[in-house]
Formats: sequence, structure tokens, C-alpha cells
Amino acid sequence: MLEKIKSHINQSLQSLKNENIIHLSSYLSHGKMLRSKLILAIAPNHPKVLELCAIIEMIQSASLLHDDVIDEATSRRGEASINAVFGNKNAIMLGDVFYSQAFYELLSFDIKIARSVAKCVVRLSSGEIDDVMMSNAFQSDERLYWRMISDKTASLIATSSECAAILEGLDFEKYKNYGENLGIAFQIVDDILDVFGDEKKLGKPAMSDFKEGKSTLPYLLLYEKLNNQDKQKLKSFFRQDGIEAREWILARMNENNIFDLAQKIARDYGQKALKAISKEKNEHLESIVNEMIFRQY
Amino acid sequence: MLEKIKSHINQSLQSLKNENIIHLSSYLSHGKMLRSKLILAIAPNHPKVLELCAIIEMIQSASLLHDDVIDEATSRRGEASINAVFGNKNAIMLGDVFYSQAFYELLSFDIKIARSVAKCVVRLSSGEIDDVMMSNAFQSDERLYWRMISDKTASLIATSSECAAILEGLDFEKYKNYGENLGIAFQIVDDILDVFGDEKKLGKPAMSDFKEGKSTLPYLLLYEKLNNQDKQKLKSFFRQDGIEAREWILARMNENNIFDLAQKIARDYGQKALKAISKEKNEHLESIVNEMIFRQY
Repeated sequence: MLEKIKSHINQSLQSLKNENIIHLSSYLSHGKMLRSKLILAIAPNHPKVLELCAIIEMIQSASLLHDDVIDEATSRRGEASINAVFGNKNAIMLGDVFYSQAFYELLSFDIKIARSVAKCVVRLSSGEIDDVMMSNAFQSDERLYWRMISDKTASLIATSSECAAILEGLDFEKYKNYGENLGIAFQIVDDILDVFGDEKKLGKPAMSDFKEGKSTLPYLLLYEKLNNQDKQKLKSFFRQDGIEAREWILARMNENNIFDLAQKIARDYGQKALKAISKEKNEHLESIVNEMIFRQY
Repeated sequence: MLEKIKSHINQSLQSLKNENIIHLSSYLSHGKMLRSKLILAIAPNHPKVLELCAIIEMIQSASLLHDDVIDEATSRRGEASINAVFGNKNAIMLGDVFYSQAFYELLSFDIKIARSVAKCVVRLSSGEIDDVMMSNAFQSDERLYWRMISDKTASLIATSSECAAILEGLDFEKYKNYGENLGIAFQIVDDILDVFGDEKKLGKPAMSDFKEGKSTLPYLLLYEKLNNQDKQKLKSFFRQDGIEAREWILARMNENNIFDLAQKIARDYGQKALKAISKEKNEHLESIVNEMIFRQY
């Protein structure tokens, strides 16, 4: 099924009849296609479901292409990133081609679907701007963190679920709610793994968020627990790298049970996702929450 | 009228309720708004005309924001560029906000208008990719030049005219045709001025296109006229800077009457633009062609 989605994306790009675009995009990898999996779990047999998946994956690819330029990333999903191979210029413009071709194809769908996706891309990009603006100094305001992860991570997961439900004629608010909560839980788990590591992946955790200027939930929870002197010390380690910072932060995280606190919050959001669709009897969607949020790590 | 369009754009951005976006976009300048002038000349009294202008200007701003990152430009319209003040990250993402908010607002228009604009953004971005790909070596294939300037410059001018005509219930193919030809003529004039300078602006011409890796029409016409040895010499100056290159190129351009040849082609496109709307009796559109293409330079 995921292969069929890739072939839809290729067809869409071939229709542009521009050999440079076809060449550049042949270097893209498509990852696990979580958003397509959600769509397929909600509207598995709808005649336009693969087309919707292809559009959402193109939006996701566009957003990653621009992210990689922003983060000066040299790899993506184990392959060299487009910006690393063909330069920032081509990566930005290929992202723009993907966004605009996706918008063009959305116009053959229910207008509610087109509106949801367009609004979502506004949120994706706003979330990125917030992320950049917040990276100058440690940001202890939790409200900004919630807005940022909701915009940056949850919005496209929420939109994917919502649009699939609109396609299928289901109660789309429930599915949007499911996706929003799943997306937030997913981001928190990601933020936890950055600090505490993942059992599945041996070796030390990366602890890269804080040194890259991201004030994620574990750091916000820790900051609340610390006395004034340690609050200042934590702040002084923001955007710093070094063994002293890593060890001090990890010791304070462990003393203050930040893992448990953060995990509980992630699971609360996971529960909210499950509750939103509790009457929909969709085992596939339920198992996605269980595998992503309630797994061991 | 142009002030009212700016206020429409501001309202649209205010509706996003994100203080970072409002702050960043307060640094944007909007230039001469050629595209809005065309729209206003075609559908002056339509109740949605200012909204359409605001959307098209947001698309144009998004495209310039991404261009400036690509060109590492430090200024735009006499002001410091967003990328120079706030970094590439914010400039890319603000462009994405503008594109996606514009697409969102387009959904309240006739679907033909939304399709035309979405397709146009695909063309704008494809044209940029072609431009980047063509900048590695001198490109003597005229077909690639025509495709590139049609995509990069003419497409949004064509779409602006077409969409205004759709709004007004006019024969939109004629207006699209007008805009496409005007856009191509406008780009050729720009390419001529880069080599030969503009009477209005004293001082030496910039001659920056060739050294920046752009094979524009005057260079393509010159290449055709040169013998094999001089063809190689011209190619050897591609992406080079220096007094010898400038003087040699300008002498060959003058010997071969490239100014007249290129100007004739620009004017032929200007005539095509006028012919496309000859029965529409729109003096305003006619005078725009005369002022932009048939002026003294």
C-alpha cells in the first residue's frame, strides 16, 4: 500500500514534465509514513484515499525539506539530505514545488479537506518560527512549548486523521481530536527519549535538544522543581555542550523523577487520544497509540 | 488603493494570532505592486478585488523571501532583507506562512482561481530550480531560457491577469495571454538593462547576470553570432568577474547589434500582449505595456 502511495507521488511529479524536479525528488526517502497509516486506518477503501495519502506525504516532505535547510542537516532517514547533495537553493524550491503541487491536487477534494490542510501548513510554519525565536534563550513558559509542539508536530497528524474522516463521512471532530492528542503525546515521548535514551537503541542518550536551543518538556518540568540557584545553573547550560552539563542535568533529572512525570503527561495525552475515538471501534487507531505511546522505552 | 491592499495583508496575518509572525512581517516592504495594479485595472469594482490583490501580493512576497535566501541577498527594495536581519530560517518559514495563508484564503474564491494560483506557484518554484541548475555552465539552449523566464517571471503576471478576468466574468484566456506576454517582455527588458544600462539611472550597467551564472537573452543572441573561437571565449567568461570580461563582452554586444535585436524581441512580446486584449478596450492595461516595454531606455 505504501508503495502505491509512492507511485502516486511520482505520477504527480512526472505530470510537471520538468526533468530537474524528477531528478531531485528521486533522492527523497519517505520514511515510515505514519500519517498515511492513520489515513489508511480511517478510510481504507475510499477511492481517493491513496491520492489523499500522497498529498499529505508531499506536505510532510516539503516541511522536512525546509526543516533540513534550517537545521543544516546533512542526513535524513539514513540518506544524505537534498540540501547536502544539491544545496539549500534546490531544497527550498523543491519544498515549494511539493507544497504547491499538493495544494493544486487538494482542489479536487471536499473544500473542508483543502481548508484543513492549508491551515495546517500555516501552523507547521508558525511552529517553526516559534521554535527559532525560542531558541535564543531558555524559555520557561510552558504555554509556548505547548503551542509550539501542537503547531509543529501535532497539526499534520490531526489534519491527516480529520481529512480521512471527512473523506469517509465520519464524525471528523473526534478524529481530529485523536490526531492532535496522539501528536502531542508522540512529541513528548520524543523529547523524553532525547534525555533518557531508548532501551531499543543501546548507547547514551543524545541529549541534543537542550544544546540545540530547545526547551522541551523534561527541562520545563525540571526547571519548576529546582531552587533559584539551580534554576540559574540550568539556564547557564542552555545551548552549551560538555560533559559537566550533561552529567549535572541528568543527575537533577533523576533526583526529581522527571522521567516519570513526563511519561505520565505523555500517557495522559495518549489516553485522551484513545478516549476521543472510544466509540468508533477502530482497533487499528487504538493499536497505533499503544505502540507509539504506551510502549516500553 | 495600494494602502488598502497592505491593510488586507495585515489583517490576514493578524488573524493568525502569532506575535512572531506579526513582528517579522512588519519588516517587509511591498514594492510597486505591479500585479495588484493589473488586477485593479481588470476588475476595479469587484467586491473581492482587494482580497485577490492581497493574496497575490502574499504569493509574490513568499517567492521573494525564498529568492533572497537563495541569492543570499542582503537587501530588498532598498531595505534590509528578512534573511539578513532575522536569518534564513525565519525567512524560509515566513515565506511558507505567506504561501499557505494565501492558499487558505484562495479557497473562498472560484475554484478556477485557486487552481490557476496553485499551478502558478508550482511554475515559480520549478523556474527557480531550472535557474539554479542552469547556473553551473553557460546554457546556449534558448528553449530552456524561454521556459525559465516564462515560469519564473511571466507566470504570476499571467495568473494575476487571468484571475482578475475570472472574477470579473471576462474572457480570461485573453487576459492570461496578455499577462504571459507582458511578463516575458518585462523580463527581456530587465535582461537588456543589466547589460546596457538604463538612461534613467546614470552610471555603468551592472552586468551582473552573466557573472552570477545567468545565461540571459542578450548572451544567447550574442553566442549565436560569434565564430567558434569567440564562442569559447564568451563561455570562458561565464561566472567570471573582471574588467577584461566586461569590456570584451560589451564590445562584441555592440558590434553585433545585440541591443537592437533583443529590444525587437521584447517589443514583439509587448505587441503580442497588446494584441491579446485588442478588443477589450482596456486603456489602462495598454498603457502598462507602453510604460514598461515601449519606454526609452
